[in-house]
Amino acid sequence: MRILGIDPALRTTGFGVIDVEGSTLHYVASGTIKTDAAALGDLPGRLKIIYDGVREVAARYEPTCASIEIVFVNVNPQSTLLLGQARGAAITGLVSSNIDVAEYTALQMKKAIVGAGHARKEQIQEMVKRLLKLPGLPGKDAADALGLAVCHAHAARSFAAIEKSTARTRSTKAQFKGGRSY
Amino acid sequence: MRILGIDPALRTTGFGVIDVEGSTLHYVASGTIKTDAAALGDLPGRLKIIYDGVREVAARYEPTCASIEIVFVNVNPQSTLLLGQARGAAITGLVSSNIDVAEYTALQMKKAIVGAGHARKEQIQEMVKRLLKLPGLPGKDAADALGLAVCHAHAARSFAAIEKSTARTRSTKAQFKGGRSY
Repeated sequence: MRILGIDPALRTTGFGVIDVEGSTLHYVASGTIKTDAAALGDLPGRLKIIYDGVREVAARYEPTCASIEIVFVNVNPQSTLLLGQARGAAITGLVSSNIDVAEYTALQMKKAIVGAGHARKEQIQEMVKRLLKLPGLPGKDAADALGLAVCHAHAARSFAAIEKSTARTRSTKAQFKGGRSY
Repeated sequence: MRILGIDPALRTTGFGVIDVEGSTLHYVASGTIKTDAAALGDLPGRLKIIYDGVREVAARYEPTCASIEIVFVNVNPQSTLLLGQARGAAITGLVSSNIDVAEYTALQMKKAIVGAGHARKEQIQEMVKRLLKLPGLPGKDAADALGLAVCHAHAARSFAAIEKSTARTRSTKAQFKGGRSY
């Protein structure tokens, strides 16, 4: 299973790709999609950069599924609106590439990586480096994206174990869904 | 010039297509893209319906440009976030179809259609019916979308007139942009 993690934002969207082989995780790639180059007034143009960037990453690494952060309401409502649009562009980049999307909160991701929901950015970078045996610290946005991919790997594994243990008694196969409902 | 107006929302996205010939406006088509059929918990699936729907409308009517409503912060921050994501999906549907996107607030649209920013939904439906010589009242979401297309037709015309009157003194061609900056 190859998982693409996405940490969406209007300015810098992080992405991280990992392979899952049994209980082993392998780093494949990570990076950021930046929209600073676009004119600040041109929101459609910036959303296109995010959408195109996500599609490009999906086409290059051909992930089995994606794991994207559930964003939260900002103290500034205008920022909330912009972040929502950026996330919408990132998700359409994924679904238009026919990739299934799981969703996790930052809290779920931090618990999966560091073991605590109040982890600092630096702790996530450090733990992602260790978990994926990276030679150096990943950037903050890329670390969050890799963290989301690892979080999905853990959740999918737990779900597979439950599936296996109950396979004899259930005939219908439930579908795994991360995150929460709307 | 053929203009596609889009009134984005998570549940029901309105669309309206008009042709502009000099000072005459012709109705081409209008309707809605509904995501109610998708599972309520499946946000990526609902965003895909909006994205696919916008692309389908763009492919069928081949508009020259699009006019989309600038959405505002809701009293409920969670709704703001969902609306932002729906708008992001609609815009990526347009820009991925290589359509230039102009943006207008509901206030600008209402002023262009009814002449007052505090116009009720029913007034917009009635004025859109009259302006486009429709046989009956359009639905509320479709009326807003047609209103956005008409608003852009007016703005583009005003801009063309300014362009024309200043063409002799200016060498660089300014590009028309609706709405506001971010």
